Amino acid sequence: MKQVKVSNNVIRRLPRYLRKLDELKTAGVDRISSGELGRQMGLTSSQIRQDFSCFGEFGQQGYGYNVTALRGEIASILGTNRDFSVVLVGVGNIGRALIENFCFEQYGFHMVSAYDVRPELIGKNIGGINIQDISDLPQAFTNNDVEVAVLCVPKSMASTAAEDLVRYGIRAIWNFTNTELNITSSDVIVENIHFSDSLLALGYYLAESIDQKNIDDARAKK
Amino acid sequence: MKQVKVSNNVIRRLPRYLRKLDELKTAGVDRISSGELGRQMGLTSSQIRQDFSCFGEFGQQGYGYNVTALRGEIASILGTNRDFSVVLVGVGNIGRALIENFCFEQYGFHMVSAYDVRPELIGKNIGGINIQDISDLPQAFTNNDVEVAVLCVPKSMASTAAEDLVRYGIRAIWNFTNTELNITSSDVIVENIHFSDSLLALGYYLAESIDQKNIDDARAKK
Repeated sequence: MKQVKVSNNVIRRLPRYLRKLDELKTAGVDRISSGELGRQMGLTSSQIRQDFSCFGEFGQQGYGYNVTALRGEIASILGTNRDFSVVLVGVGNIGRALIENFCFEQYGFHMVSAYDVRPELIGKNIGGINIQDISDLPQAFTNNDVEVAVLCVPKSMASTAAEDLVRYGIRAIWNFTNTELNITSSDVIVENIHFSDSLLALGYYLAESIDQKNIDDARAKK
Repeated sequence: MKQVKVSNNVIRRLPRYLRKLDELKTAGVDRISSGELGRQMGLTSSQIRQDFSCFGEFGQQGYGYNVTALRGEIASILGTNRDFSVVLVGVGNIGRALIENFCFEQYGFHMVSAYDVRPELIGKNIGGINIQDISDLPQAFTNNDVEVAVLCVPKSMASTAAEDLVRYGIRAIWNFTNTELNITSSDVIVENIHFSDSLLALGYYLAESIDQKNIDDARAKK
């Protein structure tokens, strides 16, 4: 079913569709037209039909989409049934938040272990995960088939840690270090959580909204 | 300079341009063509010229862009000189990580205070920020002109906390709760950090890469 080279924009929209369909399911909606789905998501209906056409045909002309079936198809395209193995490197605030509060299983991942350099953390159990010494990290790759590393080390250690992971044979890095990782191996997937990009976008919209309000206020005074 | 209704896609690319230009500055690059900038960012040169044309004309035909000047223009468009006031609500792992490690000032924001419900945190100073009782939050809006709230409370408290903030007069919410906030006031800007969207995209690319490797391996064996 999956076709080669779907655009990144489409792939980035798939998780949004998944969230929206979950929301619709929870609200008891069984069926939705591309027009209504588009309206709720700020997309055009033709955009939505075009997105889904990349992966085959969902839905039936004039009947709309079956919410549960469409959700299943998108989840499957996103690989949520793959059960990827995850290690977490760097059990600071962010690392701990992910271990304790983020439901990896829901998205097709499961965490096998977490690593840190600080002696006071080693051997501790946090949220059901055993914290191990970073020097034991290579063993995770011989014992298990670890595919994904969640990188939560401080900025200053980010590059070295990423290089180590690539050398051990990691397939993908989920990067929380707010640093660009310059990974030479093109086989390794790097997915960045850039807090700064998000905050800058917020700043743009806020500045725009304040400017508009000032214009409106000035007009109202005249 | 700023024109009305720039598309969201363009706005989302601006922080990426800013990061790339910072990287170029650090590498000692003074001037760059739209073609080279595009190559380094995976965009076409015409895409780049089109993006920048939304905000006026930067650069000179045939001479490329002055890296420092372009960086300054984009930073100004993004409002990094605005100095927005921020409160943080919910000093759990994520909240603490942001207070301790994230440089709000760099992006045109400054944190004035942080709030929590847990008595053991109230009155503590974390990373130079005084943790206050959540019941004192309304005062922040009478004493200061607080524009942005960083929302880091647990999921179960997200909606209530957001509604309170809107009632107090917040202008924008940076939402780390991994929950959709249904805010009725259209004047309030909500910017979400959706960890799940990012991990799902990673899963898609990883599944695609593993499938491709399996195909290649099978071919090699023939």
